[in-house]
Amino acid sequence: MNTEIINIGDELLIGQVINTNCAYMAKILNQNGITVKYITVINDDSTAIKNAVTLALQRTDCVLITGGLGPTKDDITKHCLNEMFNGKLIENKEVSTHVKSFFERRNLPYTDTNRSQSFIPDCCQIIFNPVGTAPGMIFNSNGKLVISMPGVPFEMERMMDSVIPILLKHYETETIIHKSVLVSGIGESFLSDKLEEFELNIKNINNKDKSSRFSLAYLPNAGVIKLRLSMKCSKRESALEKFQIQYSALKTAVGDFLIGEDDKSFAQIIGEKLQSKNQTLITVESCTGGNIAHSITLNPGASVYFKGGIVAYCNEIKNKTVRVEEDTLSIKGAVSEETARQMAENAVKLYNTDFAISTTGLAGPDSDGTDTEIGTVYIGLAKRNGETIVEKSCFKTSRSNFIDRVTNAALFLLWKNI
Amino acid sequence: MNTEIINIGDELLIGQVINTNCAYMAKILNQNGITVKYITVINDDSTAIKNAVTLALQRTDCVLITGGLGPTKDDITKHCLNEMFNGKLIENKEVSTHVKSFFERRNLPYTDTNRSQSFIPDCCQIIFNPVGTAPGMIFNSNGKLVISMPGVPFEMERMMDSVIPILLKHYETETIIHKSVLVSGIGESFLSDKLEEFELNIKNINNKDKSSRFSLAYLPNAGVIKLRLSMKCSKRESALEKFQIQYSALKTAVGDFLIGEDDKSFAQIIGEKLQSKNQTLITVESCTGGNIAHSITLNPGASVYFKGGIVAYCNEIKNKTVRVEEDTLSIKGAVSEETARQMAENAVKLYNTDFAISTTGLAGPDSDGTDTEIGTVYIGLAKRNGETIVEKSCFKTSRSNFIDRVTNAALFLLWKNI
Repeated sequence: MNTEIINIGDELLIGQVINTNCAYMAKILNQNGITVKYITVINDDSTAIKNAVTLALQRTDCVLITGGLGPTKDDITKHCLNEMFNGKLIENKEVSTHVKSFFERRNLPYTDTNRSQSFIPDCCQIIFNPVGTAPGMIFNSNGKLVISMPGVPFEMERMMDSVIPILLKHYETETIIHKSVLVSGIGESFLSDKLEEFELNIKNINNKDKSSRFSLAYLPNAGVIKLRLSMKCSKRESALEKFQIQYSALKTAVGDFLIGEDDKSFAQIIGEKLQSKNQTLITVESCTGGNIAHSITLNPGASVYFKGGIVAYCNEIKNKTVRVEEDTLSIKGAVSEETARQMAENAVKLYNTDFAISTTGLAGPDSDGTDTEIGTVYIGLAKRNGETIVEKSCFKTSRSNFIDRVTNAALFLLWKNI
Repeated sequence: MNTEIINIGDELLIGQVINTNCAYMAKILNQNGITVKYITVINDDSTAIKNAVTLALQRTDCVLITGGLGPTKDDITKHCLNEMFNGKLIENKEVSTHVKSFFERRNLPYTDTNRSQSFIPDCCQIIFNPVGTAPGMIFNSNGKLVISMPGVPFEMERMMDSVIPILLKHYETETIIHKSVLVSGIGESFLSDKLEEFELNIKNINNKDKSSRFSLAYLPNAGVIKLRLSMKCSKRESALEKFQIQYSALKTAVGDFLIGEDDKSFAQIIGEKLQSKNQTLITVESCTGGNIAHSITLNPGASVYFKGGIVAYCNEIKNKTVRVEEDTLSIKGAVSEETARQMAENAVKLYNTDFAISTTGLAGPDSDGTDTEIGTVYIGLAKRNGETIVEKSCFKTSRSNFIDRVTNAALFLLWKNI
């Protein structure tokens, strides 16, 4: 069963607001076996709305609309749908009672503009809006449902709780299963070569067994790739077992580059690994400027394993906080293997942790006056037992992407060593 | 001139990734006088891609496509466009040289999968991709341009810098002028009250002079509001002068809450202010976990004014690095005015800077076992002259939004005092 989401709103077409509604809806719908085939964004324009709904009814089984239900003049969704389905706007007692009490509770007057929200097409079924004034509306177009919801995210989210059971009752749906693994330490094209056999195999399975369909998606981001395995299945029986066999095969094929599962972030995976081993970490960052510490502390409970960090941006701080020798800084340079080594090694000792990771590099866009190539970075890892590793890399990219890539490379070095 | 954006990717239709690409593109296009009429999201499916491009060519003047250009098997955009425009895939020397050197620089082999990226339809013009391997492609369909770009956000963003001049040369567009001011220290609804007269005035001007149209947009983000004034204008003559009068009026209306102009980030504005006064900063962060340092170091040249930072996450580090007294931590607590004060005051002295900002708070979602309310934060600012200010706030929100709000509140405190 396929649906189309139509989001209505000028603010989406000028890039003023990021469309989070469609991602929320798509996620919930998918989890319930409902495929989103198209997402269309249009402005509050009568012709655009009517054309979009007509097209969606031609190409999908169900249309979910958000936006344009407010009381102001620029909101016209209700009027358009009323005209399309040849209805009449009639004051709905249930809605007017709710809207009235909504304003009364806030000590606000029940004006004509507010009252207009209670006028509902007589050709639709309403969905109660517990957290706002505009109700949802369900129109039936020759068996296909057209559902209109408010565009305010938290009103839509609450209303989706009512919409999902309505859809599951009205339509026969497929089972969809998704699971993701996180991969690092390998580029997208090399990973694709590594997974060639696995991908051929799921293709063969798709050809042989028409009751299910596997697919694999690559979602790369600054040195980390999320691999998502999906299976659509018309038979519910033994779907999970069938999926699990291929999911295990995928994990085997990824091998040593697999760093985690279940939609967790890289920093979260590392945090859990440190916590399970009762180990602690300190970060000493130069070119990443605090981004590694920030990634780690985004996760609740980080204080259990993360003692803290130093952003050793200038040489003076490298020397004062983690005692990088002045001679090293002046002779070898701030961006050098020796500096990265001392940053990590000294931090492990000074702050008594199991691990310290250090970064020192040249993000650019400008040179630092030495002959160090822009993009060069040294990443250090020191352990409590005295062992230290320093890796050199070069990421020629934008400043912010450089910071993200070095962050992920540092997390990968740490991950391999926990 | 109208365009349609088509974003291709299964991950968008299952809600795994929020579609930030279309918002970025819509924003840049609008700033250049190009109206986005539709945004369509579809999956990596040959029929869906061809139908969407055909429909877009019927209803708009220009089609901008992202996604599906990777080297892996699920990426088929190039092949679909090649078929639609009756082209032949031919190895492009310019692209293959770039792709080869891209892998050589990383000491990685140039495999067949990578080589496949150099095969380009002979019926398109290519757009160089400086930060990735897949080039952009421009097809001409009876005068209407169909432009295909990578879906990786930072690759697409860099490529849009090349696409905009191509569009402006190919199409006739209206003059659009935008300028933004950054506002902090005031909530959105209070700012809206403050600007009531200004907004009424531009409305009157729109009614009187039909050759131009002013609009004002509020873009709030974690305690900072960007106000964007736009003017669409059919006559190029004296457009800038006309705009400038209202822009000055806007700045006057915002008054003391105006912190910067020209689409600069808050941290960037602060960096420029510090640099112009030859002053230096150190950060001592607990609950913001390195995010303030990260925001500051995202800007090239930050090392001139930013000496570095401490992420004093656990009490031991607060004591060891910036010498917060153990008694203070055990009696007053880590989240206290006194701790924030010592963090900032001691850092200014120890690291010999003009300013130190400190944060200590309880981000949540879990309590720290004391009776401190979740969301509480103390922000400290110490100056070289011995003066120290500590502000208490409470932000009840998600963990990541709490971190962003405290970061902006700390930057605002610093900004007022430079």
